[in-house]
Amino acid sequence: MLKMQDIITKKQLGRELNEDEIEYFVKGVTDGSIPDYQISALLMAIWFRGMTEEETITLTECMTDSGEINVLSSVIGKKVDKHSTGGVGDKVSLIIGPMVAAANKGVYVPKMAGRGLGFTGGTLDKLESCTGVNTEISAEEFESIVRELGFCIAGQSKRLAPADSKLSAIRDVTGTANCIPLIAASVMSKKLASGSDYIVLDVKCGSGSFCKTMRDAEELARLMVRIGAREKRKTIAIITDMSAPLGCAVGNSVELIEAIRVLEGRGDEELTELCITLAANMLYAANVADYETCTAIVEETLYDGSALKKLAELVKRLGGDERYIYDTSLFEESNVTAMLVAEKSGYISGIDAYEVGKAAAILGAGREKIGAEIDHTAGIILNKRIGDRIEEGEALATLQAKTLERAQSGMEHLFKAVTISDRKPEEKKIILRII
Amino acid sequence: MLKMQDIITKKQLGRELNEDEIEYFVKGVTDGSIPDYQISALLMAIWFRGMTEEETITLTECMTDSGEINVLSSVIGKKVDKHSTGGVGDKVSLIIGPMVAAANKGVYVPKMAGRGLGFTGGTLDKLESCTGVNTEISAEEFESIVRELGFCIAGQSKRLAPADSKLSAIRDVTGTANCIPLIAASVMSKKLASGSDYIVLDVKCGSGSFCKTMRDAEELARLMVRIGAREKRKTIAIITDMSAPLGCAVGNSVELIEAIRVLEGRGDEELTELCITLAANMLYAANVADYETCTAIVEETLYDGSALKKLAELVKRLGGDERYIYDTSLFEESNVTAMLVAEKSGYISGIDAYEVGKAAAILGAGREKIGAEIDHTAGIILNKRIGDRIEEGEALATLQAKTLERAQSGMEHLFKAVTISDRKPEEKKIILRII
Repeated sequence: MLKMQDIITKKQLGRELNEDEIEYFVKGVTDGSIPDYQISALLMAIWFRGMTEEETITLTECMTDSGEINVLSSVIGKKVDKHSTGGVGDKVSLIIGPMVAAANKGVYVPKMAGRGLGFTGGTLDKLESCTGVNTEISAEEFESIVRELGFCIAGQSKRLAPADSKLSAIRDVTGTANCIPLIAASVMSKKLASGSDYIVLDVKCGSGSFCKTMRDAEELARLMVRIGAREKRKTIAIITDMSAPLGCAVGNSVELIEAIRVLEGRGDEELTELCITLAANMLYAANVADYETCTAIVEETLYDGSALKKLAELVKRLGGDERYIYDTSLFEESNVTAMLVAEKSGYISGIDAYEVGKAAAILGAGREKIGAEIDHTAGIILNKRIGDRIEEGEALATLQAKTLERAQSGMEHLFKAVTISDRKPEEKKIILRII
Repeated sequence: MLKMQDIITKKQLGRELNEDEIEYFVKGVTDGSIPDYQISALLMAIWFRGMTEEETITLTECMTDSGEINVLSSVIGKKVDKHSTGGVGDKVSLIIGPMVAAANKGVYVPKMAGRGLGFTGGTLDKLESCTGVNTEISAEEFESIVRELGFCIAGQSKRLAPADSKLSAIRDVTGTANCIPLIAASVMSKKLASGSDYIVLDVKCGSGSFCKTMRDAEELARLMVRIGAREKRKTIAIITDMSAPLGCAVGNSVELIEAIRVLEGRGDEELTELCITLAANMLYAANVADYETCTAIVEETLYDGSALKKLAELVKRLGGDERYIYDTSLFEESNVTAMLVAEKSGYISGIDAYEVGKAAAILGAGREKIGAEIDHTAGIILNKRIGDRIEEGEALATLQAKTLERAQSGMEHLFKAVTISDRKPEEKKIILRII
């Protein structure tokens, strides 16, 4: 008879767990028969000892099977899912869903997103910055929106991979979130259970993400692609830079507004490039056309206004006021706006994503506990990007917060995040590698 | 503001925790504000990363202060405590308490013992094999017995180092029991809180104990002695062999009976030697006389019947029938008795303590869950010791159990624990080192 304690000890000693042991663990997590303290002990042992590819695949499969599978079966057609491993200023889901849907090539994007406990709210919080939007909809409503608009962004079904929800919640508060096999199993189990045919992964690399080094990012990317292949889902992983924040806005409403700028065809260049690459790969994965054609198709949606229209339609379907999408001056303003100015002239040589994220959290853009309120208006808008020239006294960034106190301490933190040098730094690419 | 998650991460990265962090942790364990899953995550990180001596001392002090201290203040006189790190067949507490009390040198032995989740019951279970004995007495009653008889063996006060009780319960089921700094802090915090002036530690070394190697045993012993010195308690650690079971009996009533044999002056030679050494060190630590004189004093208590009388008095005071102590034929017999015979002739060259312990557990002598019933009559009596000559077909051990099924599977397990060789093995000492 299997005992959780023996499974923990086996992993502590660095030995490979077999299928029966992993299945026993995931079943016990799902039905609540294994106490939380034994779960976290095993997770920590895995953090130290790692998992083999076989173990990771088995864990992914068991987690996938822990809930309902193929939950999107009512959507007939090619379904493609995109997942980002998370970073600072990542508003990509708000952009590429509309882009792929607007391309109108029979490819559906059913995007189940989260709220997270990070520096800012999650994709759902960003979308809900638009007055009236409610992303907590039923599974039936979700599927119906996907069928109708070609995409949807809403809360994740509780029926989907419940073992992952439990494990992720424990990992978040026990220092075991940053563990490559556990990340891979978490991401892939949800994607597999949702029943998407094609998966495009945005694996972040740099200070603002789990994978601080290219080596870690590659390992995670390759592992997820191999898991996808084993489960017969075409999976493409794109490693992208997260040493600096993505785009110029970090927060909730500021990020939605930045997403709108991209959909208007006048967004940040780097962010636009990333969105085009991801959206093109989504069509390409779904065999719509060759890669160049896919790129041209998705680019077009930004310049003909069709992608922006898709976002407005979604906002309306989720109970929100679609006028916000066409007129961002309608968004609620923050109580306090402060400006960070440069102390010396030079070139912006570094904007540390992690530190900017912390500054955003200080401003009130994130939540510390599950279920806590967040300030949708709090956030940071960077006026300069890496490589830009700046003069002493020139505005570097704008900060938004509810109170002067928060604005001040956010400013102090943001100040440390930015480096100004005499020499123009080498250019850095946003797309680092495609696997 | 301190956060448990940051403390976990700091230890994961192998950095030393400071006083504030350790204090925050122990306070949170004691008042229940830190959830179990974060406690076990930190314990596992400590298992992998270890603790410095400074960290261990701070942890010990915080755990000591987590409850009432100096709980034995009503006992005026020298108080000496003995603690064993645990092994198979360890009935020493039942023997040395009576010996030191019978020596009548003004040295008190307030022995708070446990039940444990090991292969057999704990010291309390062994004592309760004698019909009527109840070791769950109040703190007042405990102190009153110590004052009256010079010693007492009973359950540990719940007021004593409550942080340790919580941590030990979690460690038992999360694979973190075998961690040197955590063992040291656990043992020493209870000893320090109870207010004993002198501490004698029996650190086991070998397959049947936590410390499998001399290196580990020495590290643990030195660490505990240093903690004792820091807290101004004279502490002696004796490293003793636990590669083979201690004595001939492993179980509950069989161990109490073996303890009685030693107290009658006709017990197993090695076990008797160990008890004399420990009891003599207890008197010596308390500055009663030089070591040779202390040895002579405690030896005498075995041969003049005074130590046996002390045990009988304790049994009576705890509500038990003292006639059992003078006539062991009164003890309840087990339903099934089975004999393990040698398959070949030769010399007994190995009796693996760990495997004998597991066999005893299979027979029903231990408990799997806290609060579970145990079979007091189940156990093993070894007829042969390491170095003894045995002939094919000769009885090697007697097994006692409630059912034939248990007896059979216990026998199969015990069979694997014993090695018979052609050559007489080298003699092994019970006392390995005194620190």
